[in-house]
Amino acid sequence: MTTWVYIAASLDGYIAAEDGSIDWLTGLDNPSNDDYGYAEFMKGIDGLVMGRGTFETVLTFPAWPYTKKVFVLSNGMATLPAHLAGKAELLSKPPREVLTYLAGHGYHSLYIDGGETIRRFLKEDLIDEIIVTTVPVLLGRGRPLFGETGALLRLSHISTITYPNGLVKNHFRRNRTA
Amino acid sequence: MTTWVYIAASLDGYIAAEDGSIDWLTGLDNPSNDDYGYAEFMKGIDGLVMGRGTFETVLTFPAWPYTKKVFVLSNGMATLPAHLAGKAELLSKPPREVLTYLAGHGYHSLYIDGGETIRRFLKEDLIDEIIVTTVPVLLGRGRPLFGETGALLRLSHISTITYPNGLVKNHFRRNRTA
Repeated sequence: MTTWVYIAASLDGYIAAEDGSIDWLTGLDNPSNDDYGYAEFMKGIDGLVMGRGTFETVLTFPAWPYTKKVFVLSNGMATLPAHLAGKAELLSKPPREVLTYLAGHGYHSLYIDGGETIRRFLKEDLIDEIIVTTVPVLLGRGRPLFGETGALLRLSHISTITYPNGLVKNHFRRNRTA
Repeated sequence: MTTWVYIAASLDGYIAAEDGSIDWLTGLDNPSNDDYGYAEFMKGIDGLVMGRGTFETVLTFPAWPYTKKVFVLSNGMATLPAHLAGKAELLSKPPREVLTYLAGHGYHSLYIDGGETIRRFLKEDLIDEIIVTTVPVLLGRGRPLFGETGALLRLSHISTITYPNGLVKNHFRRNRTA
């Protein structure tokens, strides 16, 4: 099982303003309509794992955006909306059990999404690949990408891509042997 | 007057562990003894501005490391050590007055150093150039590079350099016209 983080953050490490808004990200110049590798990345994963907060944000989108199965981590939700049957599944398990469960169901490559879920997985050193696209802005405050980890986690740098509008996408891989 | 930040930080935005240690930075592989452009950067500045904390760290070094004049911001210190006469000068002024004072004394390009001093200058939008070298490690906790700013600060991406040991150096410029 390989777990992936794929996310954009401000230079000061926020993934959203305090009220959740991301207009500093969506309002960027993007004349060539670049997707920054998102579609290619999505081809490589076979499932998504997100928390309730991210899931509820996605529900506000005009249409369900995912072609891969989404697993929603929540202890508080009883069911998911009926129209998402087959598309999304509720899991009330902690991170490590989520991975064991999904590995047992044939999943190999999971997109771990949403700040809180990413931090929970990182805290248990359960993230293998981190692709962070840095947006050239300082928000000054907001919802952070990273939080406390259980230990210092060494990474290896895999690649860097810069985009004409100033985004810098870095791919790091968890290095558990160093 | 142009103000510069030139600093290394972990991927999660810390410039030192909680106890101030930077062994996660100094212990990096560096077979070609690369200085990551530091000497070249230092040629371009004509003075340094740092707070008391950074200054006291520098005093623990075996020798005074700077050839450019250092301005130490402190309200609490009465004097600097006598052996630093001509090399370092105490300034008890807030950031904006520091810049006015030094501009009046012929300085054009200042290296603003140390986490607290950087954050104080950023809070008043007094930083023009930010060169941050990202170290591929998650510390999980520590002394942060960035803090609250007075507003959202847009930057322009100038350049990115990646090093064989995984460091990624990004140069951003404050964009006050966007």
